[in-house]
Amino acid sequence: MTAIQDSVVAGVLARDSRSIGRAISAVEGNGGSPEILRALFEKTGRARVIGLTGPSGAGKSTLVRRLAQAYRRRGKTVGIVAVDPSSPFSGGAILGDRIRMTELYTDPGVFIRSMATRGTLGGLARATSDAVDILDAAGFDVVLIETVGVGQDEVEVVKAAETTAVVLVPGLGDDIQAIKAGILEIADVFVVNKADREGADRTCAELSMMLDLTQDRGWRPPIVRTVATRDDGTAALLEALESHEAHLASTAERGERRARRARARLRTLLEERFRRAVEDRAPTPGGLEEAVERVAGRMEDPYSAASKLFEKITQRKK
Amino acid sequence: MTAIQDSVVAGVLARDSRSIGRAISAVEGNGGSPEILRALFEKTGRARVIGLTGPSGAGKSTLVRRLAQAYRRRGKTVGIVAVDPSSPFSGGAILGDRIRMTELYTDPGVFIRSMATRGTLGGLARATSDAVDILDAAGFDVVLIETVGVGQDEVEVVKAAETTAVVLVPGLGDDIQAIKAGILEIADVFVVNKADREGADRTCAELSMMLDLTQDRGWRPPIVRTVATRDDGTAALLEALESHEAHLASTAERGERRARRARARLRTLLEERFRRAVEDRAPTPGGLEEAVERVAGRMEDPYSAASKLFEKITQRKK
Repeated sequence: MTAIQDSVVAGVLARDSRSIGRAISAVEGNGGSPEILRALFEKTGRARVIGLTGPSGAGKSTLVRRLAQAYRRRGKTVGIVAVDPSSPFSGGAILGDRIRMTELYTDPGVFIRSMATRGTLGGLARATSDAVDILDAAGFDVVLIETVGVGQDEVEVVKAAETTAVVLVPGLGDDIQAIKAGILEIADVFVVNKADREGADRTCAELSMMLDLTQDRGWRPPIVRTVATRDDGTAALLEALESHEAHLASTAERGERRARRARARLRTLLEERFRRAVEDRAPTPGGLEEAVERVAGRMEDPYSAASKLFEKITQRKK
Repeated sequence: MTAIQDSVVAGVLARDSRSIGRAISAVEGNGGSPEILRALFEKTGRARVIGLTGPSGAGKSTLVRRLAQAYRRRGKTVGIVAVDPSSPFSGGAILGDRIRMTELYTDPGVFIRSMATRGTLGGLARATSDAVDILDAAGFDVVLIETVGVGQDEVEVVKAAETTAVVLVPGLGDDIQAIKAGILEIADVFVVNKADREGADRTCAELSMMLDLTQDRGWRPPIVRTVATRDDGTAALLEALESHEAHLASTAERGERRARRARARLRTLLEERFRRAVEDRAPTPGGLEEAVERVAGRMEDPYSAASKLFEKITQRKK
């Protein structure tokens, strides 16, 4: 570790905001910062990590901030990681809708950080897990991950959480059918936000029906109604999240989830490392760029070229 | 190659629908079907490949079918690959809105295929490229790739196309600012569909302004207005797409794009292969599962575990 990394690590452990910010910036870059993460590892594993995902416009940002306030009232410190995968269409609503609650931004017991893709999908999921570790090591009791759920990307991102809430709004796609299988697998708690809107009853009823048709996994995700802008239902949501934690603590599922998270994280780290190996070899003889030339020039089919290239890349330097 | 693969290849080359369908099914699976692709390779490289992407609800499916009809009227055969990344929130609109144009489905000069994610992101982009190759080898003059543009996934998918149209609708996100940088890089043609709606002028004006602010790349993406449900503007769109092809043919860009496509495809194949290597090693001593246990049990930090694992996986079998 360099002297700078040393001081960043010391700062994170002292919960110094600037150091936390620098540490997260370091992990956002290509390849992350293994040194910092290794140094912080011993202090991790204590935070309660909760993910919130859902479509754009569901009011997740406001809800997350309400939750943070509720946890603060219970004396808990809160770190927030807002993940915005660089979707070319996801829109300005993500930032525009955000209600800036000044008290949260000036509260030393709260740290809020937005993260965006720096390139690949794997990178974002990896960086999010790293940011969670940093906040965990910094001693935040609760870490909230907020992400716009529009695709595979976000499913990967929320895998860093122990409990995941899926936030919906009445009338989404006019039909709960719009919610595909993936969502059922990740939701530990359903939130119907903007529940004062028309159609809230129907959305809840349809969710409930969908859950009736789902195989019993020992935990039935509760459906919580909220109106985040008015702070309605926040306490009920907090209770639902905590009862899921109690469920995890009392069953084998906590261990299974930890294994699943470890697996996902290892895969992500391995893939990122492989991509780096490909790039490192790219300009060398027998590297990617030579293969690109052959394939683009139609001298070789991509499958054969990839096959040879794979052998080259995985051949260890002697 | 097995006898079955042999007969599938022969069927594809004879443009037999059932064989084409079977070939595409084969490439949708994990790892694809390198044998079939290698056998077809010599017959590829002739089709004109066009991608259409844009947010859900922009009317892409209808537009794609209108385009197909227009190409048919010009005597061209058309293959369509509709890609629907398994987004848990993307909703039923994708299938529901689709206008079934019977004539297209019974026309032997048209082949339509929907593809969905079978797991990973890389897999879908790879399978899409493979499907394009199959339709290309089958002798379709034009191959249209249709995908819902909501994230990184689709950007990857449309990389298989030579020309990409980005389809928008008036009032999207109330502001063209909602369109992030990524979209500018992939759009060769902008389509404002549902142009009979209020706000079409504003959307076009904003797009135009955005293009004014963009660095000149030798090609200014035209903005085409369409009302696909009424078949308005289809001819103009076709002209715009063809004039982009003429531009590519007259500049060095065609070669650069081919190299870029080859690079993306090779990367995708390499990554898929690496993931398979990780899975193959997973249950063995020193494999992924052992590392998962160590990390989940907090006996080792993920970075160190991944590092060791990477060395193991890239160590060639002697």
